[in-house]
Amino acid sequence: MRGAVIYGAGDVRFEERDTPKIVHPTDAVIRTAATCICGSDLWSYRGINKLAAPTPFGHEYCGVVEEVGSAVTRVKPGQFVIGSFFASDNTCPHCQAGYQTACQHRELVGGAQAPILRVPLADGTLVATPDLPPAELIPSLLALSDVMGTGWFAADAANVKPGKTALVVGDGAVGLLAVLSAREMGAARIIAMSRHPARQKLARAFGATDVVIERGDEGVARIKELTGGIGADSVLECVGTAESMTQAIRSVRPGGYVGYVGVPHGVTLDAQDLFYRHVRLHGGPAPVRRYLPKLIELVWSRKIDPGQVFDLTLPLSQVADGYRAMDERRAIKTLLRP
Amino acid sequence: MRGAVIYGAGDVRFEERDTPKIVHPTDAVIRTAATCICGSDLWSYRGINKLAAPTPFGHEYCGVVEEVGSAVTRVKPGQFVIGSFFASDNTCPHCQAGYQTACQHRELVGGAQAPILRVPLADGTLVATPDLPPAELIPSLLALSDVMGTGWFAADAANVKPGKTALVVGDGAVGLLAVLSAREMGAARIIAMSRHPARQKLARAFGATDVVIERGDEGVARIKELTGGIGADSVLECVGTAESMTQAIRSVRPGGYVGYVGVPHGVTLDAQDLFYRHVRLHGGPAPVRRYLPKLIELVWSRKIDPGQVFDLTLPLSQVADGYRAMDERRAIKTLLRP
Repeated sequence: MRGAVIYGAGDVRFEERDTPKIVHPTDAVIRTAATCICGSDLWSYRGINKLAAPTPFGHEYCGVVEEVGSAVTRVKPGQFVIGSFFASDNTCPHCQAGYQTACQHRELVGGAQAPILRVPLADGTLVATPDLPPAELIPSLLALSDVMGTGWFAADAANVKPGKTALVVGDGAVGLLAVLSAREMGAARIIAMSRHPARQKLARAFGATDVVIERGDEGVARIKELTGGIGADSVLECVGTAESMTQAIRSVRPGGYVGYVGVPHGVTLDAQDLFYRHVRLHGGPAPVRRYLPKLIELVWSRKIDPGQVFDLTLPLSQVADGYRAMDERRAIKTLLRP
Repeated sequence: MRGAVIYGAGDVRFEERDTPKIVHPTDAVIRTAATCICGSDLWSYRGINKLAAPTPFGHEYCGVVEEVGSAVTRVKPGQFVIGSFFASDNTCPHCQAGYQTACQHRELVGGAQAPILRVPLADGTLVATPDLPPAELIPSLLALSDVMGTGWFAADAANVKPGKTALVVGDGAVGLLAVLSAREMGAARIIAMSRHPARQKLARAFGATDVVIERGDEGVARIKELTGGIGADSVLECVGTAESMTQAIRSVRPGGYVGYVGVPHGVTLDAQDLFYRHVRLHGGPAPVRRYLPKLIELVWSRKIDPGQVFDLTLPLSQVADGYRAMDERRAIKTLLRP
């Protein structure tokens, strides 16, 4: 088969790879219905995360089970399934506590930008849809593999509650779906920080009630102004830079919550500053597996349509163009059809 | 009157000061029944926090109201009252959210190591006991002014719950009362980190089920060993150094809580480390006022006896000896009788 492999900064190739097979009895092999490009891939694409060797790329997937290992009992060939970027057994104490991305036996799922994918720990990792989905649901189901679950975790970690004010820092696909998550969780006011007209528009479609274009001191002042001088109850940080974390921490009310899901790069926090702000901080690699059953239900019943974040669809063979479009911010998120 | 004044590192004097009077109509003036020395005072006593000028010292107090300003309606002369080190109006949005130490009109209460004290925002700040207390309850009531409320906040911020495991980092008075708080909140297992025999003993009396003497890597390994490799559900950080924060953060389970109440000094946190640990972090100056009604009830009904942390009682005139004893760790906490 042919799949995406990253060789280094700016160098993603579509090339011949061995077709994945069952390796462990707990594996499943699936035929991907769709895959996509993640904002977090750009850390490698831009050369900020270094690679030791050419690496099969991509970690978001959904598709039909082709084969399962001898120890797999819950997942069956023919089912349409979605899984997270971390395979997890879903039984260890960390999984049981809802932190499947900290599973004691977790394994990164890699090389998902391909027609065939091996998923370890299939019983713990994969969740099946009620039936084979109609084609129009596939983008939204694919979004559940990472980006929607990550936005949902941002909202959950930030303790978004009905009637409260949520601020979303970051207008990438995760930030936009964090807006959608905050709406689903009942936030009365959702402030999106964005300077990009197309993203502002989608943020409003997903439920943003206010858009703020200011940043830094002016951004903080604007948030304070919008919240009667108090600050936001919940801040959903969806970028991972020092600037965005600072923006988040300075915009929350005392005792309020910052949920952060952008992988922090070069971010150090002054504990005394956090202390005097009374901020509550929680983040990490989103435990997507925890949310999959609920989110599948919301997509299946057409209550949410996270697939709207895909504003560019390409055949998998053009994966390199997909990365370029996201790197240059021409696309919010690129869907790839195998 | 004569009261304590700090002049600089190691230099606390008991000297003549103006007797406090009502300044604002929202003030009260109280005659202190007892006052004490706080671990946080040692930052100034040791010269780590710099002073611009000689400063009346002490911020923990309880006593009888002598006089109230014309705008005070809730607090009456003759009542026995306790207040926090931050005066607060208890009506602003931050107070209403339970963060009275972030009150929009907060004022530090200073100079409490004296027979007479002015307390600003008396209606919001002071809570009266049901009646004049018997003498034997005064140490425990005094403890509610800061140290017990701070230990309680550590436990609350660390989300201590019935049946769960709580780890307390720090064996000062706050750490010991954090143990007591964790017991009151129903923790099944309470691990105290301490190398000091007298403090270990008090920790056990307050409810510690395990005492760990190891620190650093060995300390983390020991906590992991005691928790089946998982880490503690709740960590109560009661020191404020880089070592103690690191100990706390490395000892918590993924998705677990670190409540930190030691004022951080020179502590920077790596956000990516916090991210991959899935730690929940919350701390700050304890909103003691939030907990005062509940804690007064617990002391009044003899359910808790936080006054046990006072292992040295001196006349206020010997305040300088009290600081020396705490600085040299000869005393856990010094009570001063005016």
